[in-house]
Order: sequence, then structure tokens, then C-alpha cells
Amino acid sequence: MFFVILFKILILIVIWSDETNTFNTMKKIRAAVVGYGNIGKFAVEAIEAAADFELAGIVRRAGAENCPAEIACYEVVDSITKLKDVDVAILATPTRSVEEYAKEILALGINTVDSFDIHSQIVPLRRSLGEAAKAGNAVAIISAGWDPGSDSVVRTLLQAIAPKGLSYTNFGPGMSMGHTVAVKAIDGVKAALSMTIPTGTGIHRRMVYIELEEGYDFDKVSTAIKTDAYFVNDETHVIQVPCVDELKDMGHGVNMTRKGVSGKTQNQLFEFNMRINNPALTGQVLVCAARASMRQQPGCYTMIEIPMIDLLDGDREDLIAHLV
Amino acid sequence: MFFVILFKILILIVIWSDETNTFNTMKKIRAAVVGYGNIGKFAVEAIEAAADFELAGIVRRAGAENCPAEIACYEVVDSITKLKDVDVAILATPTRSVEEYAKEILALGINTVDSFDIHSQIVPLRRSLGEAAKAGNAVAIISAGWDPGSDSVVRTLLQAIAPKGLSYTNFGPGMSMGHTVAVKAIDGVKAALSMTIPTGTGIHRRMVYIELEEGYDFDKVSTAIKTDAYFVNDETHVIQVPCVDELKDMGHGVNMTRKGVSGKTQNQLFEFNMRINNPALTGQVLVCAARASMRQQPGCYTMIEIPMIDLLDGDREDLIAHLV
Repeated sequence: MFFVILFKILILIVIWSDETNTFNTMKKIRAAVVGYGNIGKFAVEAIEAAADFELAGIVRRAGAENCPAEIACYEVVDSITKLKDVDVAILATPTRSVEEYAKEILALGINTVDSFDIHSQIVPLRRSLGEAAKAGNAVAIISAGWDPGSDSVVRTLLQAIAPKGLSYTNFGPGMSMGHTVAVKAIDGVKAALSMTIPTGTGIHRRMVYIELEEGYDFDKVSTAIKTDAYFVNDETHVIQVPCVDELKDMGHGVNMTRKGVSGKTQNQLFEFNMRINNPALTGQVLVCAARASMRQQPGCYTMIEIPMIDLLDGDREDLIAHLV
Repeated sequence: MFFVILFKILILIVIWSDETNTFNTMKKIRAAVVGYGNIGKFAVEAIEAAADFELAGIVRRAGAENCPAEIACYEVVDSITKLKDVDVAILATPTRSVEEYAKEILALGINTVDSFDIHSQIVPLRRSLGEAAKAGNAVAIISAGWDPGSDSVVRTLLQAIAPKGLSYTNFGPGMSMGHTVAVKAIDGVKAALSMTIPTGTGIHRRMVYIELEEGYDFDKVSTAIKTDAYFVNDETHVIQVPCVDELKDMGHGVNMTRKGVSGKTQNQLFEFNMRINNPALTGQVLVCAARASMRQQPGCYTMIEIPMIDLLDGDREDLIAHLV
């Protein structure tokens, strides 16, 4: 009799834990972070903060050599094949290396997520990784940062609910990684910071701060910057400073607006603003996308192709009750 | 030779039209609008404005009797069974009738969309219509207005990208339909308007404008309103006016904020604002959801469970190229 009651209680606990997720016996998602620059660091933090994830390890070219102290507790390797049971790889590599890494990893049957940010090349990347993902029976979620990424979701929603009209995405004030790299490549530039300043209706001013190499003429370097393809179409100001590093701040911002027509009703007004730490948000979106990758059919997706609920951990009905 | 060239040109046109969707030979989505109050009217306008839709007809209790002039060109009937080839029914009925209508229509194998707005009852409705939809081999998308609805998508996205923190949804200034109906039900109220005024952090003031029935005491009616379940927990002001109708404006607004943590980085700030015509936006979201219903597997969904791209008409790669 005692055992019958004990057995019934056990059954009840099992049913209850299954329904409420209180006993989290679910297998954790094992994620690898590939690349350990700024975004990689923040992706590791986002994994550490997510109860449903565990870090399978970190992949960097140097492997464990000169490994930063904060990741000494993890497996740090030079190839993802040296890590065990990886479900999903978070590609925190330079954008231009995404395709190559993703194809290799998808072929291993491991999902990939990235924050590929060359807007004009997203469709070709989606085709290429779509094939690779299906061949590897895996899932790729691409361009899952904040723009492209979470901003894309808002842009798509606003396009849907006010189909006619104009949207503008205004970035900043904040550091543009792409523009900063472009300035650094110019002869005579020792260190650089390119700040993106929004002036409204999607138009941006570039404020470029540089340290000059000895023996170079500021005016010539300034002209080279202003005529570079990255800057030639924007209002650009170049300013010489003694120390660029003292100006660096990873905060960034977005102001997205849409004024449009719902049905036949004009002047519907929408606005989305954020003020955020740039790599921290990218790292977090990547981890959300990694979670969502576990819930899609094999293939390649952008953020606007996955349901928002898939970004979240937790019981579906609980999420719906709290968020819808 | 001439015919060979003509044939090749024709082939090219066919391939080109298929790729670009320029010749839209796709079958249009045939939608019925069930109920012809405020939301029904705006849903009809949104269908008329959508190139991929055609209006199968309008279902209202009175059928074609006393049919408003603007819909005289359509089939107006008293039962959806009298309309031909309906793909999806847009339920513009009172919220409390949604479940009953939806079940009947899903049983006919017709998709349904609604803007059911009793937040606490969304999960039970989803279960009930989920069964009905699967039995009818159809799709139901529920709570597809703006809140719940498009706001829910933004709320879910912000919860994902800053998992720890606080979100507040502030409504208004704008007319609350539910609160207005509640005031009208109180003895001595001839006409009423309840305005929702946001005071921040999700707290709202109620400004209630009433016309008094003859022979009633304003103070007693005012007390009855303030102690009604709809108002007892809010700061409520009741004001007697000669004509409520002169105060009515269908504009509404939302200010949603989230301050939270991405990974381990604090103070990530997000804000979503809109100033909109209330029933026009609801009508438009319903039509987008109707389109999305054609792309889901049988079952019942909320807006956070469907990919945003499914809300939009057009070639997928074109949409991704422009919006991601």
C-alpha cells in the first residue's frame, strides 16, 4: 500500500513537472562560439545567462594559446570538430568569413547562426546556406544581429500593418564598425573611429576621428577618407585627435519611423527607438536565434521567417499568456 | 523562323512573370468579413486595398436588409454558407462571440482570423480553436489586432533580446471600447465615452464623459461608475457633458518601453510608439493575419507564433532583400 501511494505520488510529480517545466530535465542546448572578438565575448555572456544553454566550447584560430582568463574554464580549441555534441555554432567571425565557416559546420550536421550584415548579399547567402543546411540536415539562421536582425522584424511588421508609406531607419549616435575599418585601411591613419550621426529620414553624417601617422599630411588623409566609397555619398567630417581610444564607447542607437496607410486610412504613425550596447545586443540576438534554430525544419532562415515565440525559452502557453 | 522567335519571346515572358510576379496570375485569397460594425468596415477597406485579396462577401445578421450603400456592390448575406469559395473569414464580431463563430466556420474548412482581446482568455481560446481547426483541416489566427496583436510581436521580440528587465505598455490617449461599454451599462447613463490616459509604467487614468438620463443624480451615477469593476482600481474622473458624440475620435496610441539586460549588459533601452486610427489598424492587421493563415499548417496560432514575412504579399526573396 505504501509503495502504491509512493508510486502514485511519483507519477503525479512526473506529470506536474512535465506540465510546468518546474523540474527542468530538458536537455540543454549545447552551443559553440566561433571567434572570440567583441561579439564572441558577449555571446559567451549571453549563453552563461541563459538557463537552457550550455557552452560546448570556444573555437579560435589560436586554440587555447594566450587564452583570455575569463574563458579559461571552457574548452578552447582551434576546430569545432574537437568539441563534443555541439547542437549549434554561433559565428562571431568577421562577416566576410561567415559563408565559409557556416558551410563547413552545416556539413557536420550542426546548426549555425550569424550576424552577417552586408544587406545586399543576404539573399545570395540565404540561397547558398539553404542548400548547405538541407544537405547537412541542419538549420542556419542568418543576419541575426540587430540590423539586420531585430530591426528587420520591426520593419517587416510595420510594412505589414501600414502597407503603403515610408519607413526610415536612423542609426546612432554610435560607432560604425564597417566605416571605422575602412578609415583604418587608408594610408597615414594610425587609429580611427567613425561615428554615425543620424540627421533624420535615413540620412547620416559621419564624424571621423583619427590619429595621424608621423610624416603624413592631415589634409591629404582627410581628402582620401572623404572620397573613399564608404564616405563619398555622406556628409563627412574628419577630425584629428591625440588619442582615439579615449573616445570609444560601444553604445549605439536606432530610431525607426514609419508613416503609412492602413487599409485606406492615412497618417498611421509608428516609431521604434533603442539605445543599446552594440555587441551585447548582437550577442544576445545570436543566442536567441541559436535557440530558435533548434525549432525549425532544415534550411536557412532570416529573422523575419521565424516565429518570435521560438526566440524564447519556456512553456509555450505560459509565454502566450504573458506576452500576447 | 518568326514563330520560333515569337515562341521564345513568349517563353521568356512566362519565365520572367513567374520570377517577378509582374503578371499576377496567382489565385486571389477570397475573404469574407463577418460582422459589419466599425472593424468590419475597416477590414473591407483593407481587403479592397490589398492586391492579392478579393472580398467573397459580407456576413451580417440582417443579411442584405438595410445594407449600407458602400457595400451594396458586394454579396451581403446572413450566413457564410451562402458565399462561394471562401478561403478565410475575418471575424469582426464582438469579442465574446468569436469562439462560437470561429468553431462553426472552421468546421466548414474555412480559416478564421479574429482580434479577440480578453488577454486572460487567449490560452483557453487557442486550445479550443486549435482542436476545431485541426478537425476542420483549417487555420485559426487569434488575437490579431494591435493589442493583443502587433504589440504582442514587439513585446515578445523585446523580451527575447533583453531577457531580464521590465516592459510597460502604456495605452492612449484614446477611447477604450470595453470601458465605454461598461459605462453605458450603468443606470442613468444616456451616452458615454471612456478615454484611456497613460500616466507611465503601465498605469492609466480613466477620463469618463457622460450624458445623464433625465431624473438621475450625477453624483450617484459617478459613484456607480467609479466603483464598477472596470474602474475601481484606476484613477477615474467622471465628467458630465451635453453631447458625448462631439468628443469622439477614433485615434489611439501606444507607448511600449523595455529597460533590460542583454546577456550580462544592463540598461538596454527600447521604446515603441504609435499614433493610429484604432479600427483601421485592427482591420489591416486582420487582413495581414488572413494572408498568413493561408501559409500555416492546420491549427490555431497567435501573432507571436507566425513568421512576420507571412503577413506580407510578394516574392519572398524580394521581401527579404528589402526588409531584412
